[in-house]
Amino acid sequence: MNSFLDSRLQRAFAPKGIAIVGATEDRNKVGGRPLHYLQRFGFQGAVYPINPKRPTVQGMIAYPSLDALPKAPDVAIVAVGQDAVTGVIDQCAARGVGTAIVMSSGFGETGAEGVSRQAALVAQAQRLGVRLVGPNAQGVANFQTGAVMNFSTMFMEVEPADGPVAIISQSGAASVMPYAMLRERGVGVRYLVASGNDADASVCELALTAAADPEIRVVLMYIESLSDPLMLAEVARLAAVRGAAVIALKAGRSAHGAKAAASHTGAIVNDDVMVDAFFERHGIWRAQDVHGLVNAVELYLAAPPRVAGRLVVMSHSGAVGVLCADAAEALGLPLADLSPSVVQALAGIMPSFATAQNPVDLTAALITQGGMFADTLGALGADPQADMFLIGVPVAGEGYDVVGMARETAHFAASRGKPTVVSAPQASVREAFHAAGVPVFGHETDAIDALHQWSRHGLLVAQAAKRVAAPAASTPALPRGNAPLLSEADSLALLDKVGIPTVPHRLCRNANEAVAAWQQFGPEVVVKACSAAIPHKSEHGLVFVGLTTEQQVRNAWNACVERVAAMNFSMDGVIVAERVRGRREFALGVRQDPLFGTVVMVSDGGKYVEALRDFVALLYPFCESDVLAKLQDLRIAPILAGVRGEAPVDLDIVARTAVALGALAAAHADRIASIDLNPLIVGEQGQGGWAVDAVIERQGVNDAIH
Amino acid sequence: MNSFLDSRLQRAFAPKGIAIVGATEDRNKVGGRPLHYLQRFGFQGAVYPINPKRPTVQGMIAYPSLDALPKAPDVAIVAVGQDAVTGVIDQCAARGVGTAIVMSSGFGETGAEGVSRQAALVAQAQRLGVRLVGPNAQGVANFQTGAVMNFSTMFMEVEPADGPVAIISQSGAASVMPYAMLRERGVGVRYLVASGNDADASVCELALTAAADPEIRVVLMYIESLSDPLMLAEVARLAAVRGAAVIALKAGRSAHGAKAAASHTGAIVNDDVMVDAFFERHGIWRAQDVHGLVNAVELYLAAPPRVAGRLVVMSHSGAVGVLCADAAEALGLPLADLSPSVVQALAGIMPSFATAQNPVDLTAALITQGGMFADTLGALGADPQADMFLIGVPVAGEGYDVVGMARETAHFAASRGKPTVVSAPQASVREAFHAAGVPVFGHETDAIDALHQWSRHGLLVAQAAKRVAAPAASTPALPRGNAPLLSEADSLALLDKVGIPTVPHRLCRNANEAVAAWQQFGPEVVVKACSAAIPHKSEHGLVFVGLTTEQQVRNAWNACVERVAAMNFSMDGVIVAERVRGRREFALGVRQDPLFGTVVMVSDGGKYVEALRDFVALLYPFCESDVLAKLQDLRIAPILAGVRGEAPVDLDIVARTAVALGALAAAHADRIASIDLNPLIVGEQGQGGWAVDAVIERQGVNDAIH
Repeated sequence: MNSFLDSRLQRAFAPKGIAIVGATEDRNKVGGRPLHYLQRFGFQGAVYPINPKRPTVQGMIAYPSLDALPKAPDVAIVAVGQDAVTGVIDQCAARGVGTAIVMSSGFGETGAEGVSRQAALVAQAQRLGVRLVGPNAQGVANFQTGAVMNFSTMFMEVEPADGPVAIISQSGAASVMPYAMLRERGVGVRYLVASGNDADASVCELALTAAADPEIRVVLMYIESLSDPLMLAEVARLAAVRGAAVIALKAGRSAHGAKAAASHTGAIVNDDVMVDAFFERHGIWRAQDVHGLVNAVELYLAAPPRVAGRLVVMSHSGAVGVLCADAAEALGLPLADLSPSVVQALAGIMPSFATAQNPVDLTAALITQGGMFADTLGALGADPQADMFLIGVPVAGEGYDVVGMARETAHFAASRGKPTVVSAPQASVREAFHAAGVPVFGHETDAIDALHQWSRHGLLVAQAAKRVAAPAASTPALPRGNAPLLSEADSLALLDKVGIPTVPHRLCRNANEAVAAWQQFGPEVVVKACSAAIPHKSEHGLVFVGLTTEQQVRNAWNACVERVAAMNFSMDGVIVAERVRGRREFALGVRQDPLFGTVVMVSDGGKYVEALRDFVALLYPFCESDVLAKLQDLRIAPILAGVRGEAPVDLDIVARTAVALGALAAAHADRIASIDLNPLIVGEQGQGGWAVDAVIERQGVNDAIH
Repeated sequence: MNSFLDSRLQRAFAPKGIAIVGATEDRNKVGGRPLHYLQRFGFQGAVYPINPKRPTVQGMIAYPSLDALPKAPDVAIVAVGQDAVTGVIDQCAARGVGTAIVMSSGFGETGAEGVSRQAALVAQAQRLGVRLVGPNAQGVANFQTGAVMNFSTMFMEVEPADGPVAIISQSGAASVMPYAMLRERGVGVRYLVASGNDADASVCELALTAAADPEIRVVLMYIESLSDPLMLAEVARLAAVRGAAVIALKAGRSAHGAKAAASHTGAIVNDDVMVDAFFERHGIWRAQDVHGLVNAVELYLAAPPRVAGRLVVMSHSGAVGVLCADAAEALGLPLADLSPSVVQALAGIMPSFATAQNPVDLTAALITQGGMFADTLGALGADPQADMFLIGVPVAGEGYDVVGMARETAHFAASRGKPTVVSAPQASVREAFHAAGVPVFGHETDAIDALHQWSRHGLLVAQAAKRVAAPAASTPALPRGNAPLLSEADSLALLDKVGIPTVPHRLCRNANEAVAAWQQFGPEVVVKACSAAIPHKSEHGLVFVGLTTEQQVRNAWNACVERVAAMNFSMDGVIVAERVRGRREFALGVRQDPLFGTVVMVSDGGKYVEALRDFVALLYPFCESDVLAKLQDLRIAPILAGVRGEAPVDLDIVARTAVALGALAAAHADRIASIDLNPLIVGEQGQGGWAVDAVIERQGVNDAIH
């Protein structure tokens, strides 16, 4: 039994009995439409319209109140005025109703008064042991049983059909848009949930409830505000165990979009970088729009996503091959190099002017030599280099045996077990392949996008399953004190204790100590004032670089003393550090996100860190190989690999440092708010690197800093 | 009369008489299907089947040969074996046929023998004054007149309808794919041409022929190999004059795609950077795939593209607003800030919980207050901040007056004259708006993509119309000589003559001259060996930087003399140059493309120019403001603008230098093959910059260089 699952919500997704509080005769009202749907879509359980003023509603016996019901229903639809909702929740508790789907509006979506009304409602429900979907929810629909407790008009317009897909959305509109698109493609949908204000049972917990159904293969989510990522991680984990997949559209990634989302739901704004890192970490595919949410669903239904790279394209048009090659390369999806034996076999099958290479061009000879299609597919399927197949059918008509091609393709996919899709602009061609069970797409880019997503998602899921928390290293204590920041010396000392290589340096309390340090670390040193109150030393003229004489060191000491005194701060001394030189500077940062936990950012360093925004983010825990893989996403990755005869940059030290920073911050999550390590100067491969400056910020201490 | 237009091809697009050489009874053969189509689609002109073996073909009187025809046809379809083609062309010439559509294959697409057969065919046709479409062409179709001289099966599958769109493609498949997509959207297509091997009349000349039809509003092109860009520029120019638009899919942009295209057509591979620059320069929109080719067509048909930025989104769903804001920001399409008076007007129309901001959320109150739709539209239309409108209809059904909304939207668009589109996942909703004449899209991203394309294309067209060649500056002569490269001194001297600021420097013939130059340009100088034979001086240890003493300068002289002697080259002397320092280094390059002419590349400079590939390309002629606009596309643009309190980089000098380089190379197109100016060291705004090194390569001289 999964401890995250709530049996009350599970019963609400597959109820035996449903009450509708506020049931009305008019099927175009919120309290009338679910009742209409329950009858229309053949719900076989008990339906209890609650309406004290009428003996029947929509031809069914009505009850005056919940406590008058002959049996406790699993769920109550609440479609009453906002002021009456709390009374209904009391009745739900009294009658033993597990879940209330609150369609009533006038809560968190309507300003301060509504927000406090909503908080009181949730507190009441939790106290009484009633789970809430909503308020302001469009509701829950189960098209397997006909338990359609949802007031969308869409189900009158677009006929439902049961299928292995769940759509769980915070928005009503964003729940029915993917529904309409999937139904148009002939894909069935079992659950459709729009959770509205998401006040008690969140969109993530509702998705978990759907994912617990062993027949659900794809969970589609629309999220504007992610409040409980741990629950979402559990959705992904539970789905992955069964080979089901989670695809989520997290909207509000743009500045305007986030503003609109906040205005729409009044909810928190997520840091989009964290969302990306979190989804990737847990093997959740992030769709960019509603089309992206549904585009690959048929491919997922054909087989769970898995790591599979190399694509073979086959068509009777050279242009389709060119278009597919362009689309694949744009996504980094490799085309398979056909094995020599397969090329030879193809040469025997295809006409002399056809192309025995990938993309495979059967040419219009397909019309006169229909057998070529199956023969070529057979030869290609035997190639161990080929992982996935795209068959382009740009045109058909008289002379083309489309039904036969569809049959051959379905047979091929089933016998080879390799994902095989078809792209065709003609609806009639797509229908023939769809009828044979082959995933179909309207054009090449959609098909390639889907194949890329499927295989890349497979990789993410595999990585998420493998990933284990690094063994907890012994964690050094933070120095005592309650200044908001640790001084540079204290910060570097702490980094040193967790194994991060720091620049050779010493904290010097007087000029003579500084000169002695210069003699130790010279000939060239850097002198910096050390004060926990002044993290931005450069801006205050407190950093002196390239010092090579005793006099320069003494001058620097004097300048630090004078300037810090002029700022009315105290100084711990000056840091005298060796002037180290490497191949590349990095900046590493750690933040504690209240939702997502410890996140480590690794950025190209130097003066323009913020302006160029060339960084990657990793959620802790992660290991060194995770960092090395992510560093390939940096724009400067080609440089790091070594160009123009240069040796590669020592990325191992970057990876080790990132892991050590993450572990340190995670272990002190309640005491370390952030770490800025900038720069980490890194040498060539094997030379290591040096943390040259660092600032550690304590958690919960907020004095002014300068 | 447009001098690029050929009246023979124009007659072939709208023929009065058509001969089919190789006409057959079987409508599923190449020589049978056009005959079938001509009858099926109601062609009213004369049709002459040519078949010496039969009295009639498909019920029509057959003729034994072209010379037996009662009247000369405008066009002859050639559907005979490859060996018979030349004989038919002779007959065409003899009978006065202007154009032969050669469907026969076995030419350039089949290897070396076919290539020479094709060359002979083209030479023959040109000698005889017959224009060719093809060979290996699927043919030409005119759905206005029913002159369907095209053997695609598609027209049996997807019923044609006349409309203001032309599809001109090198590939048969890529001609019918956009056709099928457009027809599915209810858009009519007049011309559909697949030119096959493109051997005589190119896809560009055929597009020009279509664009000359004053009723054609959109020209869609599929190009794998662009051989006559000047003709394409003329297509764009002719279209723009009439407010028509050219959208082209140039495939083969990826390495694999280019390889597949070369194998497909055997034709040249275009440099994709040049293609981008050329399209942009001439106001041609470059589609990324077949979907992108057709996606915005309905919007173009509603109004010619024009410069129009700010978008207003209106929907009865908050989620649609969020999704649109995300999609718009991803493309850089700004959302309008509504005027205060409009916000006030909206507040009076919309319910209190609806959002009187952009995106506008009408909420589900739209169901009960149907008048809100028109009232809100009216208020928004009055806002001068609003240029374009997207109306999202994520769901409809009972309670929604979709037909009324469609009528209001069409009225709004017509009266305001501002582009207005609808996004709706339900086919029935799209049909209602489409019937009212409103461009419709299946989801938000397609709609936003189309609006972005339309307005951005309008900008490109406007810029292309405005752009005039810079007045020809007096061009200095190249120094005499026939070494493949000019020496650095000669190169810098030439740049200096065209007004490019060069680093203060002198070519010194002996050590004493070098010392004197150091005294002039010091205290710090750079010394470089100067030899036209050695452009890559650094790699041979012939560059000495940071010299501050006479002895260092003498040592550098000696080292240059020794090392160049050891390489067995002669040396012109050494260049002694001031050590200049600026804010940023750029690398500028000029190439002469055989197809596209003089192109100037401006790149972020430094050691990693090639690895980072942060560059823009401009086709000459262009002016300084063109360069300044393009520089905004560089990834380093934020840095150039000045961050962290820095002044902006002096981009004016970069722009002046790029224009001067382009003008110089264009004026010497037959003598200068390339120019590499690297680095151009640039200071802060107002400080100018210095060309520090340059290599000019002569055209047509190809000795070994080191």
